[in-house]
Amino acid sequence: MENILLHYPEDLRRKAARIRAIVFDVDGVLTDGGIIYSNSGDEAKRFHVRDGAIIRPLKEEGFITGAITGRSSELVEYRMNELKVDFCFQAVKNKFSKIREIAERHSLELDEICYIGDDMIDMASLEAVGLGAVPADTPNYVADVADLITKAKGGEGVLREVADFVLAAQGKMQKVLESFTSRK
Amino acid sequence: MENILLHYPEDLRRKAARIRAIVFDVDGVLTDGGIIYSNSGDEAKRFHVRDGAIIRPLKEEGFITGAITGRSSELVEYRMNELKVDFCFQAVKNKFSKIREIAERHSLELDEICYIGDDMIDMASLEAVGLGAVPADTPNYVADVADLITKAKGGEGVLREVADFVLAAQGKMQKVLESFTSRK
Amino acid sequence: MENILLHYPEDLRRKAARIRAIVFDVDGVLTDGGIIYSNSGDEAKRFHVRDGAIIRPLKEEGFITGAITGRSSELVEYRMNELKVDFCFQAVKNKFSKIREIAERHSLELDEICYIGDDMIDMASLEAVGLGAVPADTPNYVADVADLITKAKGGEGVLREVADFVLAAQGKMQKVLESFTSRK
Amino acid sequence: MENILLHYPEDLRRKAARIRAIVFDVDGVLTDGGIIYSNSGDEAKRFHVRDGAIIRPLKEEGFITGAITGRSSELVEYRMNELKVDFCFQAVKNKFSKIREIAERHSLELDEICYIGDDMIDMASLEAVGLGAVPADTPNYVADVADLITKAKGGEGVLREVADFVLAAQGKMQKVLESFTSRK
Repeated sequence: MENILLHYPEDLRRKAARIRAIVFDVDGVLTDGGIIYSNSGDEAKRFHVRDGAIIRPLKEEGFITGAITGRSSELVEYRMNELKVDFCFQAVKNKFSKIREIAERHSLELDEICYIGDDMIDMASLEAVGLGAVPADTPNYVADVADLITKAKGGEGVLREVADFVLAAQGKMQKVLESFTSRK
Repeated sequence: MENILLHYPEDLRRKAARIRAIVFDVDGVLTDGGIIYSNSGDEAKRFHVRDGAIIRPLKEEGFITGAITGRSSELVEYRMNELKVDFCFQAVKNKFSKIREIAERHSLELDEICYIGDDMIDMASLEAVGLGAVPADTPNYVADVADLITKAKGGEGVLREVADFVLAAQGKMQKVLESFTSRK
Repeated sequence: MENILLHYPEDLRRKAARIRAIVFDVDGVLTDGGIIYSNSGDEAKRFHVRDGAIIRPLKEEGFITGAITGRSSELVEYRMNELKVDFCFQAVKNKFSKIREIAERHSLELDEICYIGDDMIDMASLEAVGLGAVPADTPNYVADVADLITKAKGGEGVLREVADFVLAAQGKMQKVLESFTSRK
Repeated sequence: MENILLHYPEDLRRKAARIRAIVFDVDGVLTDGGIIYSNSGDEAKRFHVRDGAIIRPLKEEGFITGAITGRSSELVEYRMNELKVDFCFQAVKNKFSKIREIAERHSLELDEICYIGDDMIDMASLEAVGLGAVPADTPNYVADVADLITKAKGGEGVLREVADFVLAAQGKMQKVLESFTSRK
């Protein structure tokens, strides 16, 4: 999996090597920012299958995963339950305060946390954690405080790209792949 | 936030500095122009989370915000209520007449209004207001009468891009950002 | 509106100048080819607002408009009724036969018809009519038999782009625009 | 149809010439990876009309077609039934084992099977079959084990692009096209 790591400078790999938890925003990160409203009063969001598919391998490799979002909807609760992430905090007005709470509860240092966000409300967290990542379509002034801008735009597999990098930086990607390819 | 302003010529910054109200079309501006119909008779549109997230800061900085659309649907009413914009006029056949009505009611000069539209029906308004903006995917002959073509296509955060520019041109962006980043 | 015409060679403009009817496929032309299925058994498609907005001007300028589709769904009937097109034929297995039927009913020569399609089932019609147009994302071997490949992909305003060209080629665009901009 | 084949090297054409079955993953291949969740508890996916339109010609030319997916939903069952593919296996945890089962049931050699997938779970199958194909937006380390990366991204007509190539490599494309264009 050295080909993944070739895309990242040495200092970023060192940051990724320390990560024990991957925490992410929902709208604009797991989704393309789209919130679909219908006349019947329903609300919908589009998630990406390959973001979901990496949660189980992350958990098997010992990572803590979870979502923090400023908005609130049943569908997010449903999707997060399905993926069996460790937590899903909705309607969070102060995300960085929540990040510190999570750090404390799980005995994590801030530099052991990777946080993925895309907006003003995420800036304090992006700056404070060990690896702050933003999607390719994040406003520049938000991206400026992040360590990493993914190639993927929101909803195109941003979480997956970050998770692949963290797994590779910790030498765990080969094992994950073998758990799939050995199924012959 | 000077990096935002660097993308805009001086005359455009002067126009933006006068703006006190940001008024926008819905289809093709807040959305990518998509209207989703289903066999069950439901209708849906996709909004962008980062357009919505800038409404509260705009209001806190004293801006009037609102939508004018030629079509009509309950979902637009619902989304606009959720965002707490100052007005939402639907089924408007003469948008420029409505713009003048809004100007009068809120004691605004036309050059204190920023209007964002994307089609023929928006041309008179785009020409008349202080800052007329269109999404990147607007037909050329409509874009020709606008002051500003956003980098974002419809539904990708057009309102946000315009709002960020106006806030920056008035020296208010730093304060908005601090209201988020100071939440440590 | 000469700027629209500059993008088109002289022979194409001559073809467009003769058009009296604009007939279009639905999936892949008015839409991006997407058919959305849900567990509840519902089916949905995404149309573009700017395709819809040109139907009324086309009708006011005397054009016949209508859809022919190989599939069938209530939502297409609903959208076409809303736009007040002259006809909507669904579940059509032989589209070219239907084109000839339409020509006869409306006393049109084949070269007075513009047809927009995107797949094998559209090839005979694309070849036979006066102006055959395909979206930018049409398979090459289908596009090869068309007169015109739009810049827009399916669902991005393909009908609008073709209609704008036809209106401009017939010197009717200025009048259409004035009907909007004179509403001051 | 030599223009289709010009895009493919000789060894790939030889592989395609042997194919008798086209088997595909659903999420990320027939779709863009998007899984749409709504507050009402509904789930939706977006399929492409031109992927569906090639199933009948494939079957008429004697190909076996079918889907294997690791997830499970009624909507996939519904879409696959509508397209009349030969099989649709859902909730498959070991896809390669299923591929071998299919090979046995239909008396196929592995190199007579084309498989289209986009993720880790597809890697063993992509490597083992005669023609392994992945969408353009597949992670590199998955794409590395495939024979062919389509120009289309997931949901943009990936199955169609692969099917067109296989039909062309076997000299069957002209006949398929004639079955449509001869309908004058």
